[in-house]
Amino acid sequence: MGKAWLNNRLIHKAMANDSFAFSPATVAGGDAVRLQLESDIVNWLKLPLELDPEKATVVLQKQAGKFDSDEAFQLSQKGSQVVITANTTNGLMYGFYELLREKVMGTKLNTDLQSPSQPLRMIDHWDQTDGSIERGYAGASIFFGKPDKLDNPDVGNFDVKHIDGDIFRHDRTRMITYARMLASVGINAVSLNNVNVREQGIELITPKYLDGVDEIATIFRGFGIKTYLAINWAAPKLIGGLDTSDPVDPKVQEFWAKVCKNIYSVIPDFGGFLVKADSEGEPGPYQYGRDHAQGANMLGQAIKPYGGLVIWRAFVYNAHQDWRDRKTDRAKAAYNNFAPLDGHFADNVILQMKFGPIDFQTAEPLQPLFGKLRNTNQMMEFEISAEYLGHQIDVNYAVKQWYKMLNYDTKYDDLKDPHAGAVLKETAVNPAHTGMAAVGNVGMSEHWTNNPLAQANLYGYGRLCWNNQETPEDILHEWVALTFTESDNKTQSTIYKIVDTSNETYRDYCAPLGVGFMVVPHYHYGPSVNGYEYDRWGTYHFADRNGVGVDRTMATGSGFIGMYSDKLSSEYENLDTTPESVVLFLHHVPYDHVFANGKTLIQTIYDLHFQGYANVEQYVKDWATVSGKIDDRVFESVSDCLKQQLADALEWRDQVNTYFYRMSGVPDDQGRLIYE
Amino acid sequence: MGKAWLNNRLIHKAMANDSFAFSPATVAGGDAVRLQLESDIVNWLKLPLELDPEKATVVLQKQAGKFDSDEAFQLSQKGSQVVITANTTNGLMYGFYELLREKVMGTKLNTDLQSPSQPLRMIDHWDQTDGSIERGYAGASIFFGKPDKLDNPDVGNFDVKHIDGDIFRHDRTRMITYARMLASVGINAVSLNNVNVREQGIELITPKYLDGVDEIATIFRGFGIKTYLAINWAAPKLIGGLDTSDPVDPKVQEFWAKVCKNIYSVIPDFGGFLVKADSEGEPGPYQYGRDHAQGANMLGQAIKPYGGLVIWRAFVYNAHQDWRDRKTDRAKAAYNNFAPLDGHFADNVILQMKFGPIDFQTAEPLQPLFGKLRNTNQMMEFEISAEYLGHQIDVNYAVKQWYKMLNYDTKYDDLKDPHAGAVLKETAVNPAHTGMAAVGNVGMSEHWTNNPLAQANLYGYGRLCWNNQETPEDILHEWVALTFTESDNKTQSTIYKIVDTSNETYRDYCAPLGVGFMVVPHYHYGPSVNGYEYDRWGTYHFADRNGVGVDRTMATGSGFIGMYSDKLSSEYENLDTTPESVVLFLHHVPYDHVFANGKTLIQTIYDLHFQGYANVEQYVKDWATVSGKIDDRVFESVSDCLKQQLADALEWRDQVNTYFYRMSGVPDDQGRLIYE
Repeated sequence: MGKAWLNNRLIHKAMANDSFAFSPATVAGGDAVRLQLESDIVNWLKLPLELDPEKATVVLQKQAGKFDSDEAFQLSQKGSQVVITANTTNGLMYGFYELLREKVMGTKLNTDLQSPSQPLRMIDHWDQTDGSIERGYAGASIFFGKPDKLDNPDVGNFDVKHIDGDIFRHDRTRMITYARMLASVGINAVSLNNVNVREQGIELITPKYLDGVDEIATIFRGFGIKTYLAINWAAPKLIGGLDTSDPVDPKVQEFWAKVCKNIYSVIPDFGGFLVKADSEGEPGPYQYGRDHAQGANMLGQAIKPYGGLVIWRAFVYNAHQDWRDRKTDRAKAAYNNFAPLDGHFADNVILQMKFGPIDFQTAEPLQPLFGKLRNTNQMMEFEISAEYLGHQIDVNYAVKQWYKMLNYDTKYDDLKDPHAGAVLKETAVNPAHTGMAAVGNVGMSEHWTNNPLAQANLYGYGRLCWNNQETPEDILHEWVALTFTESDNKTQSTIYKIVDTSNETYRDYCAPLGVGFMVVPHYHYGPSVNGYEYDRWGTYHFADRNGVGVDRTMATGSGFIGMYSDKLSSEYENLDTTPESVVLFLHHVPYDHVFANGKTLIQTIYDLHFQGYANVEQYVKDWATVSGKIDDRVFESVSDCLKQQLADALEWRDQVNTYFYRMSGVPDDQGRLIYE
Repeated sequence: MGKAWLNNRLIHKAMANDSFAFSPATVAGGDAVRLQLESDIVNWLKLPLELDPEKATVVLQKQAGKFDSDEAFQLSQKGSQVVITANTTNGLMYGFYELLREKVMGTKLNTDLQSPSQPLRMIDHWDQTDGSIERGYAGASIFFGKPDKLDNPDVGNFDVKHIDGDIFRHDRTRMITYARMLASVGINAVSLNNVNVREQGIELITPKYLDGVDEIATIFRGFGIKTYLAINWAAPKLIGGLDTSDPVDPKVQEFWAKVCKNIYSVIPDFGGFLVKADSEGEPGPYQYGRDHAQGANMLGQAIKPYGGLVIWRAFVYNAHQDWRDRKTDRAKAAYNNFAPLDGHFADNVILQMKFGPIDFQTAEPLQPLFGKLRNTNQMMEFEISAEYLGHQIDVNYAVKQWYKMLNYDTKYDDLKDPHAGAVLKETAVNPAHTGMAAVGNVGMSEHWTNNPLAQANLYGYGRLCWNNQETPEDILHEWVALTFTESDNKTQSTIYKIVDTSNETYRDYCAPLGVGFMVVPHYHYGPSVNGYEYDRWGTYHFADRNGVGVDRTMATGSGFIGMYSDKLSSEYENLDTTPESVVLFLHHVPYDHVFANGKTLIQTIYDLHFQGYANVEQYVKDWATVSGKIDDRVFESVSDCLKQQLADALEWRDQVNTYFYRMSGVPDDQGRLIYE
């Protein structure tokens, strides 16, 4: 497995003259994080651990209550020593990885107080008990499955097999390495299994499988990471021997209380439950005429005695829309379901909402519930795994997009800081119960991710969780420097440039201007312009001979735009003040509409698609120049991916351009070849 | 299992006063057909078998050499006796079933000489050794598979599983009943396994599996049916331990000689091989730089000593077309591959060609090789299983379409009878080696077929093979009378009317006017107007804002039209003299083009789709009236199918109409609702 951005040999080299010590008060107690940190210094980095702090070059010093956040830390220079100060060993650990980073990059010691933007920084694994991963593109699960099954081919079909015998992979080496990667970028929570909870996944919460879960949780614990499980809402019926899962039924409440008791007796610091309910066919409280606050709070009540959390996904919609029905708008579903419940959710319940109103597309406006909800714990959800972003084949540095969403201005004048990331704390019931979550992207692949460059998204996701204001460019500079440390500047700069522009490049050759979902059904890779146009998923582009896009205006459309703050609504209602990147998400626009830059819509579509493909051609050329300058296997893997990306970008370019040319009849104003 | 059109109780009732005898000379020898016939009279019909012909009401009398065809028969009245005369017991058997038919229907004895139009009347099963059936919609295989696996869900994916232990189902009752059904309509050849030969299917030709094949062949033998196997062209490499399958390699020739020797030692009347080569990824002679005559003749040579045949499919095309490439035309593939080989194929080799140039669509012009080839044995291939004709959910009496293709006028003036069915004999190397083949449609379903009305296609296929001039209407009258014998006239007439119009109805709500392939990819059921438009299969409609259809003219298109006889070419080259039903197969037509009937193309599309759906609505109403008048389970099965057909026809109507409305911008001239 690849060393990703944590190369112990390089760190050892950069710190060859260093030694570590914990200040005396820091050592007390059997703290799993400290034990792991000591082990990492001694066993992983092979650096000296001094008993006497005076003799060490780096001192880790715990000072309870020193900072506002128990995870914050500060580095300081004290004579020839570097002192890492934090309230807890978790804070010290984050300071330790910051120091490693700075040493390897050779930068000046950053003595600012460093405190996380978000208290919850989570990765949701969609791993399944048979070792497959829904929407996984990097091989099989590192948690589950048999040793001989390491691939996870994308068959657009996510049935889960029943596994005879042990469902756990027990690959401790890989799990420890992964946990360290996560800790090094500040992740402090993981959910192990797919939110579509099937087969033995339903029973992970039962004594039969808790020892296996505990083995994983114990590894993560050493890295300050709490373990969560996704649950099946219908578990009382499916595995509890009850004839109902109704949340107001005392037998159901008792079932969940017992589940919690069992779990916490094995895993005392268990994080809690992640729940997808009433969505895409999954069961939920609506079946019993209960609302989602009732459903979630019942679980909150059960887990409250143990300090656990319930993370409740807002991705609730009717997946049986009729394309003929132009009044229903899937983009409004989360708002319609959850806006009326603001203030109804318990203190230990968190609403987890995808960043946009539809589904992890290349360009969406912000989910309008952010800023609208004023008394609800919330998390913003991303998808590192790249389901709609190229399946880890195409280079796609999604951190760019995430940064934009976190810093999206909701334009609520009454909020102290109306930007989406900041809004979370200000509008929470309990500001400690807010944060970010993202679908993970690793598997048993040689390089953790399919395209080694996709590691940048895992790195960047963590860094961005920690500091919502750290720019994607700064993060990328770090990642390149840490990953390709021994390569020359030109090589690093070439890699940086490819990754830096990749998110926009991918977006440009896909479905144009935020309209989304022109992908091959089920698989979600490659173009199929009409693939979802007459389907039941509510994801339409409504292209006709005159124009394309979804009218979500208040005046003539679905009214979705009215769900935003007044200022944002007014901006979006007007085609001329709508950002071009999402204009087709919000308006049905005639092909001959002229944007502010003087270009028509149809010409904009053509230009974006020609440019997107041209960028990939350039990536292929540029990448060839790093041959021999980086690890050969990484070079080959990326080369293979780029080859497929080039072929695929060509399909996108040509199919989208031809489709709109056939529709509009307007030729390209630069005379480039658009197939008839 | 359903009794289909052979209800022994009803036959017994109609023949209660009858008894049978074989004339003395007829009884000689251990003739499997005679033995089966005697057994059927005694055991199946429970009717008396007299030793003395004088005492019987029906005498079966073999007279070698009496008629031109060894399968022909004649019924005659001799006093109070009916005499069936034929050259062979096979002919007697066909006469026997004709008499049963007439008795049940209560019609006057038909004393015409009845002789088959085609010597080979074959059903190709696409059954697989794991019990699944490629493009099977009536449950699992009746030949292969485990007893507990009776369904065959359509997953659009035809992988074959390796089966541990016995691959044969051994359901003798069902196989005998099926064989009798086939014999009763004149089928005399079956191929057991899928032409995409995979997994243990490759080994069916080896001693390991020959006893199992022999069990089946022995059953069919009693009904005058020869058994064939589909082979994998690469068998010498895959199972023969050779490093090549090159047909000119002596080791390869030796391999096939040995295969034949093994087979014929177990099954002395084995029919021969069916081969799909160099098509859709299957191996073939092109891999070795050999042509298809070399490939086929090599096999012909190996099987010649035993009197076997090689049936070689002409469905050879490159399944990796680029949609941008407007010059390549899949419709031309068979012609391009095989026209140059006319006269090159051996006497015991037959070219099996789909009726149309593309692939079993609802409307296609005739495959232009028919009539063009002048020195090649040929079979015309149909697909009873209804892959593109509604999956045995939608009622679809395809006999209408087949009759049309068999009686298609090739307009070659130099042929005695230029109609496609008749052409086969006239242009053959050996007129005994021509005929018809069709992909079977039965499985372990309760009624043999999924929709019980789909039995009419199996019945009709056989009847049409026997007599290419029997009209689909006459055949349907027979089938209704034999199947719903005890229902009243009004019920029979209601059923007749639904089935009679069903082929046209289905065609009308699907892809319009012969353009084809607007189906859901892989599954081939339900609409997806653009599903194949940018795919690699060469099946495009090229719709744009001005028009739709494939220009295959000589003047401006692919030139495909030039492959027909001069007369037909001229007719097709001119848009005004092209039959409307295939006009979009042959021309790219502007939406505002006015047909002879005064209607525009766009209005024709709308009208057909509204009418097609309206017909299904009527079917639903009409079918409701037969409740209680026929078998309840048949009634319910058809009702369920019609319900799904109605929903599906609605999708076809609306998606196709909306698609073309969005494209053309032309509203329906009758103001009916077309969704935007």
